[in-house]
Amino acid sequence: MKIIKDPVHGYVEADELALRLLDSGEVQRLRHITQLGFANLVYPGANHTRFEHSLGTMHLAGIMCSKLGLDAGETRVVTTAALLHDIGHGPFSHVTEPVMKEFAGRSHHQIEGIVGEGAIAGILEDEGLDPAEVSAIVSGDHRLASIIHGSLDVDRMDYLMRDAHYTGVPYGTVDAHRLIRCSVLAGSGIALHEGGINAAESLLIARTLMRPAVYFHHVSRIATSMFVHALREEVLNVPGADAQELVRMDDAACMERLKHSAHPITRDLACRVYTRDLYKRALYVGGDRVNAAALQQDLGPARERDLAIAIAETAGIPEEEVLVDIPPLPTDLSMEVQVRNSHTMVDIEEVSPLINTLNDTRRQQWRLGVYTTRGNRQAVEQAANEVLRVKRATKQDKLVVT
Amino acid sequence: MKIIKDPVHGYVEADELALRLLDSGEVQRLRHITQLGFANLVYPGANHTRFEHSLGTMHLAGIMCSKLGLDAGETRVVTTAALLHDIGHGPFSHVTEPVMKEFAGRSHHQIEGIVGEGAIAGILEDEGLDPAEVSAIVSGDHRLASIIHGSLDVDRMDYLMRDAHYTGVPYGTVDAHRLIRCSVLAGSGIALHEGGINAAESLLIARTLMRPAVYFHHVSRIATSMFVHALREEVLNVPGADAQELVRMDDAACMERLKHSAHPITRDLACRVYTRDLYKRALYVGGDRVNAAALQQDLGPARERDLAIAIAETAGIPEEEVLVDIPPLPTDLSMEVQVRNSHTMVDIEEVSPLINTLNDTRRQQWRLGVYTTRGNRQAVEQAANEVLRVKRATKQDKLVVT
Amino acid sequence: MKIIKDPVHGYVEADELALRLLDSGEVQRLRHITQLGFANLVYPGANHTRFEHSLGTMHLAGIMCSKLGLDAGETRVVTTAALLHDIGHGPFSHVTEPVMKEFAGRSHHQIEGIVGEGAIAGILEDEGLDPAEVSAIVSGDHRLASIIHGSLDVDRMDYLMRDAHYTGVPYGTVDAHRLIRCSVLAGSGIALHEGGINAAESLLIARTLMRPAVYFHHVSRIATSMFVHALREEVLNVPGADAQELVRMDDAACMERLKHSAHPITRDLACRVYTRDLYKRALYVGGDRVNAAALQQDLGPARERDLAIAIAETAGIPEEEVLVDIPPLPTDLSMEVQVRNSHTMVDIEEVSPLINTLNDTRRQQWRLGVYTTRGNRQAVEQAANEVLRVKRATKQDKLVVT
Amino acid sequence: MKIIKDPVHGYVEADELALRLLDSGEVQRLRHITQLGFANLVYPGANHTRFEHSLGTMHLAGIMCSKLGLDAGETRVVTTAALLHDIGHGPFSHVTEPVMKEFAGRSHHQIEGIVGEGAIAGILEDEGLDPAEVSAIVSGDHRLASIIHGSLDVDRMDYLMRDAHYTGVPYGTVDAHRLIRCSVLAGSGIALHEGGINAAESLLIARTLMRPAVYFHHVSRIATSMFVHALREEVLNVPGADAQELVRMDDAACMERLKHSAHPITRDLACRVYTRDLYKRALYVGGDRVNAAALQQDLGPARERDLAIAIAETAGIPEEEVLVDIPPLPTDLSMEVQVRNSHTMVDIEEVSPLINTLNDTRRQQWRLGVYTTRGNRQAVEQAANEVLRVKRATKQDKLVVT
Repeated sequence: MKIIKDPVHGYVEADELALRLLDSGEVQRLRHITQLGFANLVYPGANHTRFEHSLGTMHLAGIMCSKLGLDAGETRVVTTAALLHDIGHGPFSHVTEPVMKEFAGRSHHQIEGIVGEGAIAGILEDEGLDPAEVSAIVSGDHRLASIIHGSLDVDRMDYLMRDAHYTGVPYGTVDAHRLIRCSVLAGSGIALHEGGINAAESLLIARTLMRPAVYFHHVSRIATSMFVHALREEVLNVPGADAQELVRMDDAACMERLKHSAHPITRDLACRVYTRDLYKRALYVGGDRVNAAALQQDLGPARERDLAIAIAETAGIPEEEVLVDIPPLPTDLSMEVQVRNSHTMVDIEEVSPLINTLNDTRRQQWRLGVYTTRGNRQAVEQAANEVLRVKRATKQDKLVVT
Repeated sequence: MKIIKDPVHGYVEADELALRLLDSGEVQRLRHITQLGFANLVYPGANHTRFEHSLGTMHLAGIMCSKLGLDAGETRVVTTAALLHDIGHGPFSHVTEPVMKEFAGRSHHQIEGIVGEGAIAGILEDEGLDPAEVSAIVSGDHRLASIIHGSLDVDRMDYLMRDAHYTGVPYGTVDAHRLIRCSVLAGSGIALHEGGINAAESLLIARTLMRPAVYFHHVSRIATSMFVHALREEVLNVPGADAQELVRMDDAACMERLKHSAHPITRDLACRVYTRDLYKRALYVGGDRVNAAALQQDLGPARERDLAIAIAETAGIPEEEVLVDIPPLPTDLSMEVQVRNSHTMVDIEEVSPLINTLNDTRRQQWRLGVYTTRGNRQAVEQAANEVLRVKRATKQDKLVVT
Repeated sequence: MKIIKDPVHGYVEADELALRLLDSGEVQRLRHITQLGFANLVYPGANHTRFEHSLGTMHLAGIMCSKLGLDAGETRVVTTAALLHDIGHGPFSHVTEPVMKEFAGRSHHQIEGIVGEGAIAGILEDEGLDPAEVSAIVSGDHRLASIIHGSLDVDRMDYLMRDAHYTGVPYGTVDAHRLIRCSVLAGSGIALHEGGINAAESLLIARTLMRPAVYFHHVSRIATSMFVHALREEVLNVPGADAQELVRMDDAACMERLKHSAHPITRDLACRVYTRDLYKRALYVGGDRVNAAALQQDLGPARERDLAIAIAETAGIPEEEVLVDIPPLPTDLSMEVQVRNSHTMVDIEEVSPLINTLNDTRRQQWRLGVYTTRGNRQAVEQAANEVLRVKRATKQDKLVVT
Repeated sequence: MKIIKDPVHGYVEADELALRLLDSGEVQRLRHITQLGFANLVYPGANHTRFEHSLGTMHLAGIMCSKLGLDAGETRVVTTAALLHDIGHGPFSHVTEPVMKEFAGRSHHQIEGIVGEGAIAGILEDEGLDPAEVSAIVSGDHRLASIIHGSLDVDRMDYLMRDAHYTGVPYGTVDAHRLIRCSVLAGSGIALHEGGINAAESLLIARTLMRPAVYFHHVSRIATSMFVHALREEVLNVPGADAQELVRMDDAACMERLKHSAHPITRDLACRVYTRDLYKRALYVGGDRVNAAALQQDLGPARERDLAIAIAETAGIPEEEVLVDIPPLPTDLSMEVQVRNSHTMVDIEEVSPLINTLNDTRRQQWRLGVYTTRGNRQAVEQAANEVLRVKRATKQDKLVVT
């Protein structure tokens, strides 16, 4: 049993199995993948990595298993899944997810290919664990998956606390121990004992407040859009560029590669992100001014690119100088959280009126962005208004929460 | 300039004027008045006092004045009001407020009588400050009152942070410095710059979450009801007991007095609170099961007592063994907060959908309680249901959030 | 199993036995005994009580027992002793200790009389625990006593962390979990695995730094001296005053009693402490200027009084206006801590050169104080120099660290 | 004025000048230089960068200037120096310092070359600041240099607090605000008012405890030794490798370059560091077993290499499999801190006996390490004992504090 110091949880204990997995190249790689991508351009402290988050998630998963009364075998498979749940991430975590989906055909939750072969498969086999079961937990397809992958899961508890610690944003306070204490195993996953409702509301509020302040801060979105475009241009234009290979890199290797690309657009955009010489917002509007739902159809980098090209043409500027950023609509919180007491079990929305509003708030936080160079802002704003059929702003629309 | 260590703000600076006021008996008394009354029966760490809260409020008021660009004279009067804003509190702070209103005819905000005479009046006069202006700020009747006494005031910022620090409840995180930075002076008081909306939401959420978890925790409500009844019995039955005098005592003197009262009911109830041998909930219902609005009419200890006596008679038990607790309905958050950017100014509800729901949530948190001894619970529950015409519980009503 | 929120440890779990003990009057009384006596006159946040410290000590004791591999029976007796270890304290904790020793003939560690009779004895018997064994652990006379009562015990870990939390002084950081992890059972008590040396040094440093900053801050010493004198005068002069009874009171009752004493000196001193209208230092010197060792002989309130009277006579002022404060010399840190690795076991001083210096530092922090009213300072300083044969100050003596 | 969120200080304010400097490539590069090199191999959270440390240092410098009463011009030059004080660092900060000194002939304090040309020189000139004055403060050659570069400087305050925050090691607690408050300008630099002695001791203790726990942790030393050897081999063996260029890279570029070096030893060592497949300690001894003072002569990578080669030859293994690590002896703490009160000024050692012991402790913490692959440990231990004439261990020597 080894002890690893962690600023969020104090100490994390790693047993022999965990130590063997930690030594694998796949897990060591997570040391070099930042948790929050380009959020460190806004919050200089946000340099924490998927490695420590994975340790923290394993730690909370172990406590959760113990509170739920799982046996040693179940606990091993759940904590292993917790440790490995993020090994599928590409460089800069969520930044490269759209490119991974588009060109490599998988999301970061799909880790069968990684745990099923190579060093990790060998370790799991040695220790009597089934790689398929581990990846089923990570992809959500397992009776115990909601420990790691639900509305009140330990993955979220860890990242909210951790992101608050490193950004300094004071909204991530989560009473993880109370939440874990109040979790119970129900037929369909983890349910919540009524004593944990306040703590659950607090977690859902933290998610809601962290969203505009950190996860969808416009500076981070602009850098992400620039980097995604750089990466796609590399894949599409540079002979021998292999998307599969690119998304298996770490942050540094991927950035170095793009900064020195043979393709000038890729090179320029990567260098700009690296030196924080970013595009600006030409348009930044919510669902009250564009049809957010309609824009979700066929959503993806290719669709965004088509719109960007149309805007660039309308504005009469080079197409690489326009980026369109259409985030997915937020999923509803807590669809599946059930609350129980000695009498009955109900959906959390029935006892917590906050939940529905938080969903409203999250939808209201959604923003479509069109980014360009400082000099092109006015021309692009006008063109984007036209191409995207943006409604005119009303009085309070002018209050953009940023 | 003297420096006073404070675990919440690090250091608080006190100038000559503040030091003189701190030395007065009226302010020293606040050392002996706990901030949260009987919340320490639930949260053993909650022993902080109105004294340190007053220092913290003065500290934040000073920062706020400086950010608003007030001149030295205005700053002096505001920080003095901040330091003195709680000297009107009775023993155990809000616990004795209803008795103070009923028998002494004032609320803790009315401090003219205290600052207008004696040591404090002398100090203020010496220093060229007008006691009437200071008490006008505290009672809310002054152009600058909303710094201390508004929806986003420094009093609230301090107590939310402080209560979180001492209870250990992690819901009180308030980004006070961001809120202060985003405050602007508008015609009607303090308005908020749009950059502070997240921080403001966070404060309003903290208020909402702290309410059931701390401020209205049932254990604390029961102890409060018991103590209020003990105190009223003293006033009503003990020759020479003077309500004016009782509410000017500190916690210890008041408790000692009641524990050794000549009146047996007073004595018994005070001793039970002291040793945490508390009544239990016979009934504890929300606004969906009783007519909360109707119950607010003529609300006060006398009304609660009438209902308790009716219940006790119905149940056939001594009347002092039944206590009825009807809290006021929560006031709406942020009625008056206005948000402004370079273009316009709007009410915060227009840009933050959370606010209205938080108001719903607060109303939903409201509980009427009927408390009695352990043995009488069933009899009292039945009688209370009858007397108060309580509706039958539906499925989710059984989920009491406690 | 009940969960109690604690701002220092997050949560403390209390089992059935602990809950029964918590409900006893003897333990509930600790809610009304401040941990640090009059330190709140310097640090306004220092209002925490022996009650929460007892909970925290029980919590750490439980973790320690589990790490040491004690069985359930041993664990029960140790955690019970931890919960009860401070029930022997008089009002204001260490403030009244000298009076308790002088007139009641016991120190706060001697709790046989309290656990051996009344409610607690009954509970212990019910639960199959031997009161004698519990009090043996508290008084240090048991194989497992050093868990609670040694150089690196859980009592110290808890109070250093807790005192730092409530005072805001940043010197109390103790890596309790690392210390506990590195504790091993050796023949003579708890020894330390070599991996914990840094953490142990850190704890000893915390003790050393907290001493002048908090535990022996002169303001707190002056208030203590005044209160002790008030209490002794009560015992010695007021017919019917019973020292045994006085030291079983809580803070409030004792203060109320003295503030309303029939004896004018008692009354005056108690009121002055209550309103923080304190005596001042007329003399405040270290061991380089008085013979600290010689002063330790027959040390106690009676001896201090004799010296005070002599000084008052020399100065020609009433004797109650002079107080002499001769603290005991600090005990050496870590006399008994042994450090072990796979090869050997040695005394901690052999591997940690810091320890000896910390002992030097602690001796150097020692101060003799003579206190009087503001107006008498000069006269008393002169008289005290004469009576106590104080050496003249050298250059650096004038640098009094306060 | 822009506000940047910082988890250590809350907020850092950046004015127009600071913002211009922050936008320069030289300062942006610090985003990509980790503060603690390879300490993240021990403390997974230690991924913070020189960028945020530079912001924090500027922040504290501003507060210090204000407390010292410096005028606006002096304040500008000091805070600018604080912001720029680390732009001279090579990749992985102190890791590459020996190579920078050996081949590029400068230490990271020498920044004239960087501030005197290019973007930064232009900005400083525009803003009326003299680059020579700024670099004089950083190199220690200026009346106000000790604000940034002394025994109690703001650089140290920031890094101790910051390193504690990110590693989770609880020894870095520094009462920065008290220290700053107690700083006074004296002829020779910053002196300390006597009220700050405790806080100063606390800082010096933090430095002492952080040294073995973080700054000189053996795992970090091993990785550093491996990386330094990889880098030197690159410089010495790869045609076109330019030390000047290498030490101007950021962490990622330097690591990528070495991982893909044409030289197999460089490549292998860099890849091992990257995947945490580290050499082990064959020898790890303090100054009681080797002549630490004698080893300091001509100290540097070249000398270490000679010894490593001799050991490898004696052991009969390839020379790249042996690394010798001889850290410099610690400099004495606080040589120049003077303490003053109203009467006099003395050296801090005269009033604080802790200081001398901390110096002893620091010397005792010094370790010479010889590192090799797991399989070679025994052979290398024997050879190293012989080559370095290591004394036999006594009983307590076997207690290695790690």
